Amino acid sequence: MRTIGVDEINDIALGASLLGAGGGGDPYIGRLMAMQAVKECGPVTLIEPDEVPDDAFIAPCAMMGAPTVMTEKGGGRDDFDRLFDLVEQYSGKKIYATMPMEAGGVNSMLPIAAAARRGIPLVDADGMGRAFPELQMVTFTIGGASATPLAYSDEKGNAGVMNNVSNKWTEDIARSITNIVGGQLMICLYTMSAKMCRDWGVSGIVTKSEQLGKAIRSIKEGLIDTTTEQRFLELTGGCRLFSGKVIDVLRETRGAFNFGKVVLEGIGSDKQHEAYVEYQNENLQCVVDGETLATAPDLICLVDHDTYIPVPNEAVKYGKRVLVVGLPCAPQWRSEAGLELVCPRYFGIDTEYIPVEERSKRKGE
Amino acid sequence: MRTIGVDEINDIALGASLLGAGGGGDPYIGRLMAMQAVKECGPVTLIEPDEVPDDAFIAPCAMMGAPTVMTEKGGGRDDFDRLFDLVEQYSGKKIYATMPMEAGGVNSMLPIAAAARRGIPLVDADGMGRAFPELQMVTFTIGGASATPLAYSDEKGNAGVMNNVSNKWTEDIARSITNIVGGQLMICLYTMSAKMCRDWGVSGIVTKSEQLGKAIRSIKEGLIDTTTEQRFLELTGGCRLFSGKVIDVLRETRGAFNFGKVVLEGIGSDKQHEAYVEYQNENLQCVVDGETLATAPDLICLVDHDTYIPVPNEAVKYGKRVLVVGLPCAPQWRSEAGLELVCPRYFGIDTEYIPVEERSKRKGE
Repeated sequence: MRTIGVDEINDIALGASLLGAGGGGDPYIGRLMAMQAVKECGPVTLIEPDEVPDDAFIAPCAMMGAPTVMTEKGGGRDDFDRLFDLVEQYSGKKIYATMPMEAGGVNSMLPIAAAARRGIPLVDADGMGRAFPELQMVTFTIGGASATPLAYSDEKGNAGVMNNVSNKWTEDIARSITNIVGGQLMICLYTMSAKMCRDWGVSGIVTKSEQLGKAIRSIKEGLIDTTTEQRFLELTGGCRLFSGKVIDVLRETRGAFNFGKVVLEGIGSDKQHEAYVEYQNENLQCVVDGETLATAPDLICLVDHDTYIPVPNEAVKYGKRVLVVGLPCAPQWRSEAGLELVCPRYFGIDTEYIPVEERSKRKGE
Repeated sequence: MRTIGVDEINDIALGASLLGAGGGGDPYIGRLMAMQAVKECGPVTLIEPDEVPDDAFIAPCAMMGAPTVMTEKGGGRDDFDRLFDLVEQYSGKKIYATMPMEAGGVNSMLPIAAAARRGIPLVDADGMGRAFPELQMVTFTIGGASATPLAYSDEKGNAGVMNNVSNKWTEDIARSITNIVGGQLMICLYTMSAKMCRDWGVSGIVTKSEQLGKAIRSIKEGLIDTTTEQRFLELTGGCRLFSGKVIDVLRETRGAFNFGKVVLEGIGSDKQHEAYVEYQNENLQCVVDGETLATAPDLICLVDHDTYIPVPNEAVKYGKRVLVVGLPCAPQWRSEAGLELVCPRYFGIDTEYIPVEERSKRKGE
């Protein structure tokens, strides 16, 4: 058990935007909302899954929709409080704590804001250990948990509670509502017991985000100055995939998702080579000289070539120089049941899943 | 207060399919569901709005979606019971009676089935006095009532309750769910007080449907044999618009609506003339020789040229001989607030609303 205040939020936001793997929303907006809540309501208590009482009821929360829309709309301050009320009314249970569902610029931050405003603890776990585009893609689905009752509201005040027969149906129905109300929906979902959280959650993800954020900051602030790229890879546990300059970006917002492709021309040791990264909210595949070096569910992250600050897909621009790194996903995703939910083929990428540590070594063979 | 059994259901279904104005769903499916419920659970008590106790809570119910989908999917027997439970749980109020929201082949029948299975009375009123394609198009919207809390479920078991900031938002959100779950949704909506029902409902619509059904049956069974068309118009209060043979039907299912156009070549006294009827679930406009003779919100109904049985749009076929009649809508729709919801221009028909009694007289002038 420890406390999260303004400093911690800064580092968590920075680290989570790396785990967002190109998606997960704008870290600037998310951070602002968490900061404001902590300034108004005081710091948040972060507890480990093992510290959650056995009979406690956990209500995770998130924003659903296309990250680009989030950047424009932002969110209201009482949105989650209303959702928590709805869930308590509907379930008849008192919410003990909230929790993030994914790691990313927005969805790592909103639960901090929600916890501060509600005066409840935040559990140091999530259901992805990264960001994924669809809501059934959580480790709790592997564990047999239901995403419903799911409570939702938009910024206009439209709200509801749903109970569905599968998490994929919840994705489809909640996504259709997200679409019709303008591309962004606040949701409270996967309400769960302490046991479910301990057995299937990605434990320690808030702390991991903070550590990653600290590491990136230490590089950015020049505290480390020798062989920085190597040091960055050591600190993040990442595999080097490519160094390049953005020469083309294709974007499309479709079905409340951001789809796109970033095309890169090699620089430095990758000069004369070329690469591209495709995404659906999050980066899904990195191809260098025609060879796939990483796919979902592993994390494919673009960071600034000089500052190592993560670059979300909505900030990718022509001429930007980036380093592409691959981070191994949480071990839950490498199981058969995990890959059923998030294998490359689910995303339309016609290849088997091979861990990024193996794929990235093959380069040049 | 009186009882509705199998005979009454037959006549109500027949008359309601005329009031469906081409939409409102297949009277065959709806009738089967009501018959089955009454056979299993006993007849239904029909009460007038004035007989509803002042403090009673009324929960209307309906099927939302494209009528063509309803014909294929049908509905489950306990769907509405689950919805009533949801509404009672959500509102904390006990449901005293149910009620139709519109008159039509399906939505006049389902509330009878729901009342029989729940063992509650049916109120002799609705919110349209006909069928309309969108759920905010009810007289209760004019009266300031909210369509929410709206409870819904599909045939797979996906269900929910929503609370929205306007009835148009409820239409949009519920329609998007209808779409994503396959084009058909069971809903319980516009829960209301006895006063709202008395002040704004279209009273006596079940009885009116029954009377219309009896009239059509008396013609069909040959009990009337002289100048039948004139007699049909007298019994229904309708205006004659056109007699013709269907020479073309254009259909499209889009956004969980059925859109289409029926093209007619004149027969009998209308020989050498031509006409068309356009619809969005329900018929919206009847044009004869380029002149608009009727528009929504008045009812434009196609009936079989020989038997006077109403022809829903999904049953319109090449070669079918029909009589097109216009029926004046409920007076609530002719007010300024009523026309704001259902004027021809809302449906994309570029003309002022002029009552069908006036428009149809102009013919040939």
